Amino acid sequence: MIKMYDLAGADPEHRFSPYCWRVRLALAHKGLSVETIPWRYHEEKIAFSGQGFVPVLVDGDIVVSDSWRIARYLDEAYPKSKPPFTVAGSVAKSLFIKHWMGKVVHPVVSRVIIPEIIKQVHPLNRDYFRNTREQRFGMRLEDLSAERDKNLQSLHASFEVLRATLGEFQFLGGSEADFSDYLVFAAFQWARCVSQVKLFPEGDLLEPWLDRMLKMFDGMAQKARRYT
Amino acid sequence: MIKMYDLAGADPEHRFSPYCWRVRLALAHKGLSVETIPWRYHEEKIAFSGQGFVPVLVDGDIVVSDSWRIARYLDEAYPKSKPPFTVAGSVAKSLFIKHWMGKVVHPVVSRVIIPEIIKQVHPLNRDYFRNTREQRFGMRLEDLSAERDKNLQSLHASFEVLRATLGEFQFLGGSEADFSDYLVFAAFQWARCVSQVKLFPEGDLLEPWLDRMLKMFDGMAQKARRYT
Repeated sequence: MIKMYDLAGADPEHRFSPYCWRVRLALAHKGLSVETIPWRYHEEKIAFSGQGFVPVLVDGDIVVSDSWRIARYLDEAYPKSKPPFTVAGSVAKSLFIKHWMGKVVHPVVSRVIIPEIIKQVHPLNRDYFRNTREQRFGMRLEDLSAERDKNLQSLHASFEVLRATLGEFQFLGGSEADFSDYLVFAAFQWARCVSQVKLFPEGDLLEPWLDRMLKMFDGMAQKARRYT
Repeated sequence: MIKMYDLAGADPEHRFSPYCWRVRLALAHKGLSVETIPWRYHEEKIAFSGQGFVPVLVDGDIVVSDSWRIARYLDEAYPKSKPPFTVAGSVAKSLFIKHWMGKVVHPVVSRVIIPEIIKQVHPLNRDYFRNTREQRFGMRLEDLSAERDKNLQSLHASFEVLRATLGEFQFLGGSEADFSDYLVFAAFQWARCVSQVKLFPEGDLLEPWLDRMLKMFDGMAQKARRYT
């Protein structure tokens, strides 16, 4: 059985990391079962992977970290379980979308939801979480909260590229979801899991796509544990 | 023989429209010959297409406008000449990249090079060009010129997504160029054709990719007529 170390909040069943969500959706796409192992920032149990971040995938003797590298590994190791979703023709474009998420969308989503995430992390992680995030953004979490509306407006503008694409196609993968959909959806799932914050207004053109994603794989994402 | 109406400057052989470049590259990719017909803003010869913009492709009885729709048409009409470059799995992601260009990159590239383009358009078009562009941007072309450095900085930041992708793959199409490369390259070709303005600094990580694009199809883009 494949194992995956998965970021957990105070509640060990509370999983919201967008990077881990990418991998969970990728595994589901491949029809592969996984045992997820909760991990908090203060825990040393992923040291064997040679780095300090989740997701970490363990498949027999093979250890892979980083969601993009994990997706690439799964395509190579399990080519027959489903059509590969990161292969040539599509792969560089998926990577482009990944970088768009990483450089444009995630920094702003982070600013919006980090003041919510801190309420969900393990109490032992709160000081660590606050200190690292306040250092990263150069401001107190309370000040991040105060600029939420400005950040939501900036997200709204960034999402125009997605809206235009998903107004024409069911998925970024075309008629079926592929890894690029998971790359993007994972950020929405992240926000959904930690807060009531809506990243776009009611009736937004992204809603039907988000709904399709939530319902995939027997509602796996929709059923996920949310904030407490 | 396929015909394409192509935006021309004062010199009828001077072609720089990024949308027309997309189609020329797409035709070359398919191995299809084309007769390009110069068109200037004041000319009525594309009225038969039912709209007022180039590129307009004429293939026998078929008339198609809009570079994305032309690419889709070519994939359908000429599926055997080369692997289709806009098909499922890749198509929605190419569309995403198209929208990223349209919503993020082109507006800024325009601001940078429009004060150069006006020097290249047909003298009869200069008043029209100035008036429409000054209205679109809400400022005089001279003021656009004054904020060039600010716009180049903004472009530089947007290009991070491209740099990260093209640092890993030869092309957005993966190991071979596909339509998404043409979508992006066309903007660089646009700037290159109308001005000496470099959209990124010497030694930029995008340079090797740009060089590959310029050399494709026997140096077709590299040999193109530039500004006078």
